[in-house]
Amino acid sequence: MYRTHTCGELRISDAGKFVTLSGWAQKNRDLGGMTFIDIRDRYGITQLVFNMDINPELCQEARKIGREFVIQAKGKVEERSNKNVNIETGEIEINVTEINILNISDTPPFTIMDETDGGEELLMKYRYLDIRRAPIRKALELRHKMSLETRKFLDQYNFIEVETPVLIKSTPEGARDFVVPSRMHPGNFYALPQSPQVFKQLLMVAGMDRYYQIVKCFRDEDLRADRQPEFTQIDCEMSFIEQEDILIMFEKLAKHLFKTVKDTDFFYQFPRMTYKEAMEKYGSDKPDIRFDMKIYELTDLVKHKEFKVFNEAQYIGAICATGCSEYSRKQTDALIDFVKRPQIGASGLVFVKCNPDGTFKSSVDKFYSADDLKSWADRLEAQPGDLLLLISGNKDKSLTALGQLRLEMATLLNLRDPDIFSPLWVIDFPLLEWDEQTQRFYAMHHPFTSPKPEDIPLLETNPKEVRANAYDFVINGIEIGGGSIRIFDENLQQKMFSILGFSEEQAKYQFGFLMNAFKYGAPPHGGIAFGFDRLVALFYGATSIKDVIAFPKNNAGRDVMIDAPSLIAEQQLDELCINIKKQ
Amino acid sequence: MYRTHTCGELRISDAGKFVTLSGWAQKNRDLGGMTFIDIRDRYGITQLVFNMDINPELCQEARKIGREFVIQAKGKVEERSNKNVNIETGEIEINVTEINILNISDTPPFTIMDETDGGEELLMKYRYLDIRRAPIRKALELRHKMSLETRKFLDQYNFIEVETPVLIKSTPEGARDFVVPSRMHPGNFYALPQSPQVFKQLLMVAGMDRYYQIVKCFRDEDLRADRQPEFTQIDCEMSFIEQEDILIMFEKLAKHLFKTVKDTDFFYQFPRMTYKEAMEKYGSDKPDIRFDMKIYELTDLVKHKEFKVFNEAQYIGAICATGCSEYSRKQTDALIDFVKRPQIGASGLVFVKCNPDGTFKSSVDKFYSADDLKSWADRLEAQPGDLLLLISGNKDKSLTALGQLRLEMATLLNLRDPDIFSPLWVIDFPLLEWDEQTQRFYAMHHPFTSPKPEDIPLLETNPKEVRANAYDFVINGIEIGGGSIRIFDENLQQKMFSILGFSEEQAKYQFGFLMNAFKYGAPPHGGIAFGFDRLVALFYGATSIKDVIAFPKNNAGRDVMIDAPSLIAEQQLDELCINIKKQ
Repeated sequence: MYRTHTCGELRISDAGKFVTLSGWAQKNRDLGGMTFIDIRDRYGITQLVFNMDINPELCQEARKIGREFVIQAKGKVEERSNKNVNIETGEIEINVTEINILNISDTPPFTIMDETDGGEELLMKYRYLDIRRAPIRKALELRHKMSLETRKFLDQYNFIEVETPVLIKSTPEGARDFVVPSRMHPGNFYALPQSPQVFKQLLMVAGMDRYYQIVKCFRDEDLRADRQPEFTQIDCEMSFIEQEDILIMFEKLAKHLFKTVKDTDFFYQFPRMTYKEAMEKYGSDKPDIRFDMKIYELTDLVKHKEFKVFNEAQYIGAICATGCSEYSRKQTDALIDFVKRPQIGASGLVFVKCNPDGTFKSSVDKFYSADDLKSWADRLEAQPGDLLLLISGNKDKSLTALGQLRLEMATLLNLRDPDIFSPLWVIDFPLLEWDEQTQRFYAMHHPFTSPKPEDIPLLETNPKEVRANAYDFVINGIEIGGGSIRIFDENLQQKMFSILGFSEEQAKYQFGFLMNAFKYGAPPHGGIAFGFDRLVALFYGATSIKDVIAFPKNNAGRDVMIDAPSLIAEQQLDELCINIKKQ
Repeated sequence: MYRTHTCGELRISDAGKFVTLSGWAQKNRDLGGMTFIDIRDRYGITQLVFNMDINPELCQEARKIGREFVIQAKGKVEERSNKNVNIETGEIEINVTEINILNISDTPPFTIMDETDGGEELLMKYRYLDIRRAPIRKALELRHKMSLETRKFLDQYNFIEVETPVLIKSTPEGARDFVVPSRMHPGNFYALPQSPQVFKQLLMVAGMDRYYQIVKCFRDEDLRADRQPEFTQIDCEMSFIEQEDILIMFEKLAKHLFKTVKDTDFFYQFPRMTYKEAMEKYGSDKPDIRFDMKIYELTDLVKHKEFKVFNEAQYIGAICATGCSEYSRKQTDALIDFVKRPQIGASGLVFVKCNPDGTFKSSVDKFYSADDLKSWADRLEAQPGDLLLLISGNKDKSLTALGQLRLEMATLLNLRDPDIFSPLWVIDFPLLEWDEQTQRFYAMHHPFTSPKPEDIPLLETNPKEVRANAYDFVINGIEIGGGSIRIFDENLQQKMFSILGFSEEQAKYQFGFLMNAFKYGAPPHGGIAFGFDRLVALFYGATSIKDVIAFPKNNAGRDVMIDAPSLIAEQQLDELCINIKKQ
């Protein structure tokens, strides 16, 4: 037997017991007469002690044990004279009578401590050593707990986890599929699912009533900072429900996770906001509502004066930064630089300082009177000491820029505390998005999303205004989940395909089996999917989802630890009947 | 609100309540004055009743409702005069006051009943309708329950579920990998995992201590009857353990599942059998021990007489079929045909009938005396009325043939009751298998399997005799799980690679990251993986794993429902820098 206890469980009440521990040597301190080794496993750290006077031979042996050696120690649990209150085993130590080296270790490429000296590439290359560090290990433990609690909750509400296939059919709509050449059917390919969307809808047609799955999904995208080619969703679908049922059920799930995992109670119903309000008041479809700082439109107040920029703008809006009226030139210049970044794209910023003495000072004093400025400040309910920040131009772009500026100001003002969680439902999304480049509509959510029944007539007359029965779940400005009520009427589905510019043939080729299934009694249904990696990262307070994935890929989609993707043998290519194209 | 109750929950105690149900019209019976519709959902079936005298209009409407229409019915729960004791809702019916057709349905291609008239291809093409049938639905419900109970159990023992990557690196050893061309790294490929083997070992190096995952695995094999290109494993690994710890832990898991899912208790320790005994006594490494009928070697007794066939044989063995002495010529001929099949490969069968009167009658009476025959019967402890079946030839082949014959006889004698479960551990597997064709050793389990410490010296002198710390979990003759204690010593691992004929370069290319990881303090570890599809099929009494998979592929690896694999667009191929090779 390798161990009688783990390295995290012995307490003062175990004093006197003879125990066996196994683990890694975290630290080896030779204090002359005494040698101390911290032995570590997943469960904790226990101090081993060797006494030169009592057993010099054993002590000499212990001194040879290097960092990360795998060792087994037998000995007696004793009360420590010098207690460590920071760790749970800190009141005891093991007076060792036998030590066995189970495996040696080269010196690790970085220190296995909470704060390490390794750079990101090095940590990823040696991910198996990185995981030994408590911060990564705890993230994976949290992830496990969250998936298990999700399952327990959904099981309790009669959801059944059904595994949907991974080798499916390519559907060119949306992001790129990863594909898998078929050896048995040369020239044909499977695709890896971007989501189990079609299958979960088929399961509703199949009468499964309540489905879920914690499932890997795949997207061959050019990776941004926080995207992975494979990621995990909590995927859910329900039959015989309306939007309200979904919101209630999954608000309960979120509260269950907050309660069981973070011991946090929410005694109120999560706020709900229409997409329109989110865009107009927060400049984002995923508002961070940990703080207020709403956007106010000033178009009606600022027009028809001498200021050409405003007069020519479609829209002028502002936010109010509390207590920032005394920002220096350097500070305001930094904000101008921020909004001028290509990813924000505003042409500039207008400032109005609401001075503590009640006067105003703005960058457009030439064009506006103190009364003008006061009327703006009044609309924003600004107080003396505050700073107004105005952006003008195209309405949508200005709102988005104000939304970004709002987040930046909140960061500067420390209003985005990661220990505060502000969940929010965003509802009433538009059904369709117009794409200027391709001159066609795209489904904002996906082609199966149901319009609001009262908006169906607008499909003919004004498709842009049609609202969908679609909703997002947002926490702290991060889109955690999203879903919709689905179309279950075959005719409406075909109308949708035609608005989205699918020819009948295309629609049949890509979704024929789903449309066919809808002929045999599709129930009213809808669902939601949560980005599990993001949810765990949020709960853990991690800035990147990589921190909560055991073996993540880097931003180029490579696993630098196992060195994938890689070349494969000619014989494999031959069997698959494919050639690499010469570049 | 679509429903106040499901179609499975109303009881006599609900009589008098006004309720709303939604579901599918299973059956519509027009009895003149009355019309009955059975409304069905996942939870059950409830009878709706319409009375021509009371509400002729509604009754007329109800008569128009076809099979599989999706309907919503409102009405009053009433006690039935004609109770159906076969269903849980059979004491009540709904006196309907309002009926809404939520969706119509074409006539389904087969009847949605427990016993259907659809053929296999049709059922698979319309799998979403097949799942509406109770036998398939219940299989998926059972699968859900088994996965959840597995997780609950393992969580309780401190196992952590860790998701390992799906896009990994191709390792040509063993079965074929499915590969995924990388768009971002042209000419390079990811591979889909045949198992998370390497990752779970890395997680042990990472100090995760106890890992599990219920995970999809992929093998591009030519499919046999009960293989799928994607399948699911319960994959587990533990550190600081020996073989005994694994057997104890996973026997507990099996007992937990039997208890919670099938309400079956096992109060005894599962039997254990060495690979040698399994092969010599059952002619199989996965013996079905629901019945005895062991194999006995007769080589020493039958040699040195006049019968050339036996004298020239390496091995002669027999089984005893209880009560079969009066088998007709037709019956024994059928057994001869059975063993001569190419997949069994025996050259013939020798029979000895132990007649009820104590005499013997054999097909080799010419060469053997009654005393000879009696000595054979004695060794097999045969009784008057039994039938001995002898096979001779090469030892391994004869044993395998006897093992197959044993199963065939047990089937004929109804000794393989699917409601009886006989679990068994098979242990002490050989480490290596010699392949005549390629003239090299292969790892019987996999290249990381540890030899028994006491057999390590034999690696140099007699590798064939080296036993592994490897074990299989078998129920009713089906291999449900298998695993091993792993090599954690870098030098031993390199010796293994060299015995398996890997050049140092090959080993480094394929497993370099694992060997590298082992340099940094690999703990003693080992694990096991269960074939989850097979386990569910066994619990459910299904003959094929297809029955317990929501969307299975056919034997050609096709999903006939979604029509995958399929052609992909030229543009996709271009982006991936691959060509289809002309045939």
